[in-house]
Amino acid sequence: MTESDTELQQFRASVRAFCDKEIVPRMEEWEAAGTFDAHELFSKLAAQGFLGLSHDVADGGESAPMEYQRVFAEELARGNTAGISMAINVQMHMATPSLAEFGSQELKDKYLRPALEGRQVAAIAVTEPGAGSDVATLSTRARREGDDWVISGSKVYITNGTQADWFCMLVRTSDEGGYRGMSQIIVPANTPGFEVARKLDKLGNRASDTVELRLDEVRVPVSNTIGEIGRGFQQQMGQFVLERLSVCFTAVGACEWALAKTQEYIKTREVFGAPLATRQYPVFRLTELSAQLELLRALNAQMCQKFEAGENITREATIGKLTAGRLMREVADAALQYHGGMGYMEENWTSRFYRDVRLSSIGGGADEVMLQVLSRIDGYTV
Amino acid sequence: MTESDTELQQFRASVRAFCDKEIVPRMEEWEAAGTFDAHELFSKLAAQGFLGLSHDVADGGESAPMEYQRVFAEELARGNTAGISMAINVQMHMATPSLAEFGSQELKDKYLRPALEGRQVAAIAVTEPGAGSDVATLSTRARREGDDWVISGSKVYITNGTQADWFCMLVRTSDEGGYRGMSQIIVPANTPGFEVARKLDKLGNRASDTVELRLDEVRVPVSNTIGEIGRGFQQQMGQFVLERLSVCFTAVGACEWALAKTQEYIKTREVFGAPLATRQYPVFRLTELSAQLELLRALNAQMCQKFEAGENITREATIGKLTAGRLMREVADAALQYHGGMGYMEENWTSRFYRDVRLSSIGGGADEVMLQVLSRIDGYTV
Amino acid sequence: MTESDTELQQFRASVRAFCDKEIVPRMEEWEAAGTFDAHELFSKLAAQGFLGLSHDVADGGESAPMEYQRVFAEELARGNTAGISMAINVQMHMATPSLAEFGSQELKDKYLRPALEGRQVAAIAVTEPGAGSDVATLSTRARREGDDWVISGSKVYITNGTQADWFCMLVRTSDEGGYRGMSQIIVPANTPGFEVARKLDKLGNRASDTVELRLDEVRVPVSNTIGEIGRGFQQQMGQFVLERLSVCFTAVGACEWALAKTQEYIKTREVFGAPLATRQYPVFRLTELSAQLELLRALNAQMCQKFEAGENITREATIGKLTAGRLMREVADAALQYHGGMGYMEENWTSRFYRDVRLSSIGGGADEVMLQVLSRIDGYTV
Amino acid sequence: MTESDTELQQFRASVRAFCDKEIVPRMEEWEAAGTFDAHELFSKLAAQGFLGLSHDVADGGESAPMEYQRVFAEELARGNTAGISMAINVQMHMATPSLAEFGSQELKDKYLRPALEGRQVAAIAVTEPGAGSDVATLSTRARREGDDWVISGSKVYITNGTQADWFCMLVRTSDEGGYRGMSQIIVPANTPGFEVARKLDKLGNRASDTVELRLDEVRVPVSNTIGEIGRGFQQQMGQFVLERLSVCFTAVGACEWALAKTQEYIKTREVFGAPLATRQYPVFRLTELSAQLELLRALNAQMCQKFEAGENITREATIGKLTAGRLMREVADAALQYHGGMGYMEENWTSRFYRDVRLSSIGGGADEVMLQVLSRIDGYTV
Repeated sequence: MTESDTELQQFRASVRAFCDKEIVPRMEEWEAAGTFDAHELFSKLAAQGFLGLSHDVADGGESAPMEYQRVFAEELARGNTAGISMAINVQMHMATPSLAEFGSQELKDKYLRPALEGRQVAAIAVTEPGAGSDVATLSTRARREGDDWVISGSKVYITNGTQADWFCMLVRTSDEGGYRGMSQIIVPANTPGFEVARKLDKLGNRASDTVELRLDEVRVPVSNTIGEIGRGFQQQMGQFVLERLSVCFTAVGACEWALAKTQEYIKTREVFGAPLATRQYPVFRLTELSAQLELLRALNAQMCQKFEAGENITREATIGKLTAGRLMREVADAALQYHGGMGYMEENWTSRFYRDVRLSSIGGGADEVMLQVLSRIDGYTV
Repeated sequence: MTESDTELQQFRASVRAFCDKEIVPRMEEWEAAGTFDAHELFSKLAAQGFLGLSHDVADGGESAPMEYQRVFAEELARGNTAGISMAINVQMHMATPSLAEFGSQELKDKYLRPALEGRQVAAIAVTEPGAGSDVATLSTRARREGDDWVISGSKVYITNGTQADWFCMLVRTSDEGGYRGMSQIIVPANTPGFEVARKLDKLGNRASDTVELRLDEVRVPVSNTIGEIGRGFQQQMGQFVLERLSVCFTAVGACEWALAKTQEYIKTREVFGAPLATRQYPVFRLTELSAQLELLRALNAQMCQKFEAGENITREATIGKLTAGRLMREVADAALQYHGGMGYMEENWTSRFYRDVRLSSIGGGADEVMLQVLSRIDGYTV
Repeated sequence: MTESDTELQQFRASVRAFCDKEIVPRMEEWEAAGTFDAHELFSKLAAQGFLGLSHDVADGGESAPMEYQRVFAEELARGNTAGISMAINVQMHMATPSLAEFGSQELKDKYLRPALEGRQVAAIAVTEPGAGSDVATLSTRARREGDDWVISGSKVYITNGTQADWFCMLVRTSDEGGYRGMSQIIVPANTPGFEVARKLDKLGNRASDTVELRLDEVRVPVSNTIGEIGRGFQQQMGQFVLERLSVCFTAVGACEWALAKTQEYIKTREVFGAPLATRQYPVFRLTELSAQLELLRALNAQMCQKFEAGENITREATIGKLTAGRLMREVADAALQYHGGMGYMEENWTSRFYRDVRLSSIGGGADEVMLQVLSRIDGYTV
Repeated sequence: MTESDTELQQFRASVRAFCDKEIVPRMEEWEAAGTFDAHELFSKLAAQGFLGLSHDVADGGESAPMEYQRVFAEELARGNTAGISMAINVQMHMATPSLAEFGSQELKDKYLRPALEGRQVAAIAVTEPGAGSDVATLSTRARREGDDWVISGSKVYITNGTQADWFCMLVRTSDEGGYRGMSQIIVPANTPGFEVARKLDKLGNRASDTVELRLDEVRVPVSNTIGEIGRGFQQQMGQFVLERLSVCFTAVGACEWALAKTQEYIKTREVFGAPLATRQYPVFRLTELSAQLELLRALNAQMCQKFEAGENITREATIGKLTAGRLMREVADAALQYHGGMGYMEENWTSRFYRDVRLSSIGGGADEVMLQVLSRIDGYTV
């Protein structure tokens, strides 16, 4: 399979080396700060050719096969890096794909290329206070005045929010209501009327800055619209698939790392006169999780193949997101539990890991939303 | 992926047509009888080229890629056919692979070719009363007298047991104990001293005959040994991998069928004034199961690819067996539950399906044995 | 607590002695026959003073405290007696309480007293084909003609159905629809137009006869109405509470027995060189179930106290029914699993126990109905 | 039952009033500080007669029935107060019961009475670095020199550790090893050689100070021994039962509060056009948790009755601790999940509640230790 591919193995090694040097050692500092310097880190990532991995060479990217994106995301997720891993995934897979696929050349030159080069930080702004995973109830409204959109409203839970140079924002551009009449518009952070209302203090992923935005008569050119006016929801749905996919890859890297750490621990930790690794109950529990991880790995491999073959992977990515979110939580829970009292201390990796991964069943669409989407795709609901 | 392959799709259709004609309509009759005519059915399967699917052309098989075996097993499992599906899987994947891989030409001519042609029924005899999934404690003993083995002991839970022409039997051929000193020996059913002690009445899979065997000074030529004397355990472990693989394929077919039937039901069944398919709780539960099924499907696809590439799939097959066993049980349980009172009636398909699949976490190695094997492979135990 | 009460202990011993003599040894025979002689057994129970335990002395009962009913139900459930236990519980707790509470003296003399004396067999007829746990959609209709009800319709899943002398039947007596306009009416089995349409073949509880009833212009006097005309649904809801309570008591007896049997087995069963009772995984699983059983026991004790104090126990009984249903299934599943291959054989107790208890999450209101009821009581739904 | 008791209801109201005034409004401040003024708060508690609730009047306590302790613990746990609730429970139920039961009058006058009056803060010191829940491997050693114990070693995860005036410490007083030869000794914090090695930063319960202790030739009189020399382990086991009991009571209060808050939220929170309380999946999940809570409540009631009757409640308390620990975690998880993105924010109560309750399956004996204890009591292991 893929990993027998020498080039891919070398790529993995290079990503790991980068993360071990540039990310892992700085996590504690960034977590304490509640942020990190995205422009600095993204520039370094771009210099290695990582940031544009998934984008076309024509747009300044690398046109790498999905397998490379998988390996990159896996490696990025090792070493208790959730907040940073998320910030990078936002830049690569959540805020830029619609722009790449539907954006005008002018827009791509102005916003995509700088983002892939790490000179600009991008963010995705969909969720609104009071709307949660329910995109249909968005109320941020862009009204047209000549060649401008004038936008007012709020957005919340925006990753990279304090540092983003621009936002891929989903807003209403007509009064049709529901899933119709939305558009994706690029809103630069320095536009008058745009404001970071407040920075949010989260349970985990603290190294990543998350904010609430307020827009009061923010004026941007209509040419900042990505793709077709009124097709924003549909375009965003496509972008969500790539987001889910990146969560699937991330989960594999994070869980592999955490399980390996825990395995190491239970082999040395003595309880009641013998290593914990001699006790069937924790051993079988960890083995279960390892088995579930293999299932996710197989699904990821299948999605890579299908994606390369041009097939629609919405269903698989939705299943994968649901699975990945839960698996990370279960792994984190088991890891903490089998570290005992020490596992509950903030000085131990398990504690932050536990806080970080709790997001995985909420962010990017809650588990219940994944189930809702799937129940329709699979036809279980009427 | 695979199913875009037209030839494979046609193959699937031909298997389905066969099963819909030769197996599904006769299940009730066979279940009531507690057996079926294996020689008759296996001959028909052979006539279609199905029985030798996984074996070499040189041995009288079809040398079909693993994908074809997967599709065959999936189709075979549709329509509440567990007992028959198991009987056929024993012939194809449990009793004959060691013979094919390690057997002498003479043995293959005498036992394998007729089995692939459906003229002989084969069975695998490993488990003993009191030993369960623990192969190391086997006590059936073959002592050597000149060019003969003289075998005494018992075997239990032997599928195809009343009809088998010969048994691929794992016995002790030395006194070393533990996992050493076992051999695989072909024991024809008509050998003096060989006796079907009794037919067993099972919770499910009743169409398949299961027996306890007794061997009292049964004399077979040493040349009936499959492969190397003393390597029986190791050879059997390889045969177990194929058994697990066939369970993985079977589960996909059985669960797909059961979920589709249940989906159909909840769309028509009205409760409290609306179809059951409008209730989030059962809908999400079935959606969950459908998602888990996709994970198993992805693992199966990966195993097929790895198998064709000559890679070892012991770990994946063990994970798959564990997953498949549980998934079938959960699907059966949900199917029965959402059919309500009717689900509990023997006239409804759910009742037999529920009884049949309970075997899946016991037969072919209990869940706990799979976890034990995996905990060693993955290094969680010391 | 209760069991320190010597009299209660003696009562328990007497029930156990009765069951060990009159019920347990005959289970196999009754299971094979698909029925048992209810008049014979009920007479014996009445002779011991067991059948009228829960009813007033004035009605021919024993006016025993709820603790005695609890102990009786627990003991009755030991020894793999599910089908018979259910049949008796129908007579005592499901078909007669409304009659006792709301029935006229004339009705009680004619139907209740003979039932408590074991001379008549009673059944409860609520569920209809197509209605399941949703009582509001009942369509069996009694129209009034002078002093008679003329009843037409169907009822299904009727325990004791082939032998019952009379049925406590819930039917519509007006056209109001929904939960209004139903009445409880006693319908003697020998009334013209009344017919046992067919006997049902069930997954388990096979010793108990279950039928579908058809009523074609069945004429009974209006004086056969239990309590108030039009209050049938409300009266039946009260009767359901006692049914749930009896399931809670039954589960404790059945699970205690099954866990004790399994405990005994894992202490003697050797796998991989040591008793199964040395393996942490099955040991902790059984310990979990034993812990859950204690929670149910505590709830049962609390319900007995509240009942005696005249408090409403609808909520507790609903929680208990939900808990009891699942716990029996989990205990049965674990028992079967840890018996391995033998556990799957019909000759082993685990197999029947597994089939029998599957009913517990469906009969008497499916788990989902219990959750629905509770979600309203506890205010989680709007 | 209990709560119909007017006096008990009034007591509940008084505790709630106290907590609402003295504890709940200060939680944020204490959480941020990582500590609280225990002497100040304990004095206030003592002034109300709360601190000595469970202790004898003769010792300066209130000799209140267990029901009052239950109500106090329940009320104390409302309002996201985990860290403070734990600190108080340590004072009342973990550090002082052995002293009360086995201590000399002199010891009680010097340490118990001041603790019950809130003038001294007490702590329990059992766990050691590297020993976790396995008390048998304690290595902190007291060697006897004349009338003194000279103690050296370490203790870890000590609640109230920075403020405690004295520690009820379990140490080895002989070389017998295992569970023998331990004693409970009171070690005042101001003894030379005693040192708070460091304050620990925890995932949750941050308002409560937790430390690691170091003892280097700490000299205390032999008369500081609680009860019999060499019986420390056995005495501590009894003290553990009361600790478990207090966790059971605490869980009821904490879960009731969290479920009520969540219920309120889902009734107002609109998703996809309707309140979350109209969705069966979250509604049934919360209903499940509410049902499980009732089971724990019933067990608690039973334990109170048994305790008052002088019966041993070790088994029930162990079951309860296991159940309580998990239930709190599940409630916290569901509460956070159904609050969506907001649930993950530190400004929302769900986030801290989630962090706090994670301790409940580790502290006071991990779930696996409870299972181990129970498996012995119930005889599932050999």
